[in-house]
Amino acid sequence: MDEIKLFEVKEDILSDNDEAARQLRDKLHRDKTFVINLMSSPGAGKTTVLLKTISELKDELKIGVIEADIDSVVDAEKIRNTGIRAVQLRTGGFCHLDASMVKTGLDGMGSESFDLVFVENVGNLVCPAEFDTGAIKNVMILSVPEGDDKPMKYPLMFTKSDVLLINKIDMMELTDFDTKALKQRVTQLNRDMTVIEISAKTGLGIDKWADWIRSAVRDFT
Amino acid sequence: MDEIKLFEVKEDILSDNDEAARQLRDKLHRDKTFVINLMSSPGAGKTTVLLKTISELKDELKIGVIEADIDSVVDAEKIRNTGIRAVQLRTGGFCHLDASMVKTGLDGMGSESFDLVFVENVGNLVCPAEFDTGAIKNVMILSVPEGDDKPMKYPLMFTKSDVLLINKIDMMELTDFDTKALKQRVTQLNRDMTVIEISAKTGLGIDKWADWIRSAVRDFT
Repeated sequence: MDEIKLFEVKEDILSDNDEAARQLRDKLHRDKTFVINLMSSPGAGKTTVLLKTISELKDELKIGVIEADIDSVVDAEKIRNTGIRAVQLRTGGFCHLDASMVKTGLDGMGSESFDLVFVENVGNLVCPAEFDTGAIKNVMILSVPEGDDKPMKYPLMFTKSDVLLINKIDMMELTDFDTKALKQRVTQLNRDMTVIEISAKTGLGIDKWADWIRSAVRDFT
Repeated sequence: MDEIKLFEVKEDILSDNDEAARQLRDKLHRDKTFVINLMSSPGAGKTTVLLKTISELKDELKIGVIEADIDSVVDAEKIRNTGIRAVQLRTGGFCHLDASMVKTGLDGMGSESFDLVFVENVGNLVCPAEFDTGAIKNVMILSVPEGDDKPMKYPLMFTKSDVLLINKIDMMELTDFDTKALKQRVTQLNRDMTVIEISAKTGLGIDKWADWIRSAVRDFT
């Protein structure tokens, strides 16, 4: 396998990100490429969720992954070990992705066409919510050990996301996580949010999440 | 108990933060107030660690807490229930604290003098590492479910912190967290970092952390 392509990306503060995101989304519609922007805190399980999702869907859909990190290429390497095309964006201290960075990643994946591209955003519940990446859908992960109070603290992230994956439900019994209270808080912020409970470690609920993707990709193309 | 004081804070992009931090630190030395800037991902356990630490030390030291959040005052309320003076900074979307915000919090705590003030920074492993808050020591929490690879992804946070609290060690057996590998990664970035393993939930290791604080406050005053 060839080396992982690594792109150093920087914010272009002079560009109009909303306009760049709109143009990118138009192009994705023309290309029939469904892009999911995946956001969470550090360590909530983005890469592990991706690995499970890829293994569920890779025989049905042509999948690519754009990894982003402040530093390091460890995540892209893990994805590449599944045989999936992955590129790494290194943001050099920058705390979120914008549309032009995602476009750099998509261009860097080469001329093949993809049905589904995951963008793994920088691990952060604050900044990524503020910037439209041009993705078709925004998906966030909240892991059980983080606690059920996060909608009160990071409301914008819950408002901007289409799907909430509650990950690490296998750890539920070790915590006082109240799923019902969480769902009430979510509904207050975002009535349309789809909530799916999963454990990327044990595989529990990954089938429901894969079904959501299948259905969304079908509606899109 | 009177109402929690809430301050809306904004970044002053024209001010020199490094200079403001230096001035604040000089003042803290004169006042003999030891300020700890506590940083972590969302949900790593900052508030729970604070609650346990306060209960361990409140009979020996006059303690105050400055809470910061994008939104909500839930953390300050939890602290106030322990009888400790707490103020809340609301950053309105801003992803970290700077020295002038911390000064706002300290001024807002009134004219009493404190031996020890905890600043609970915004839950984020990226931005808070980039801004000197004027605190005497920087302490970060990494919780076991977040994984042992975080030094590779958020190196600046590990470089800037004096103490690493590894929290939620009671969850160790449910994860593949490799404490030895983590410590090696930490040492590569920051040879002087003090690493203490704790469970804020069960109380394990809190005595060691309290001892570190006692000793640091003693050296400071």
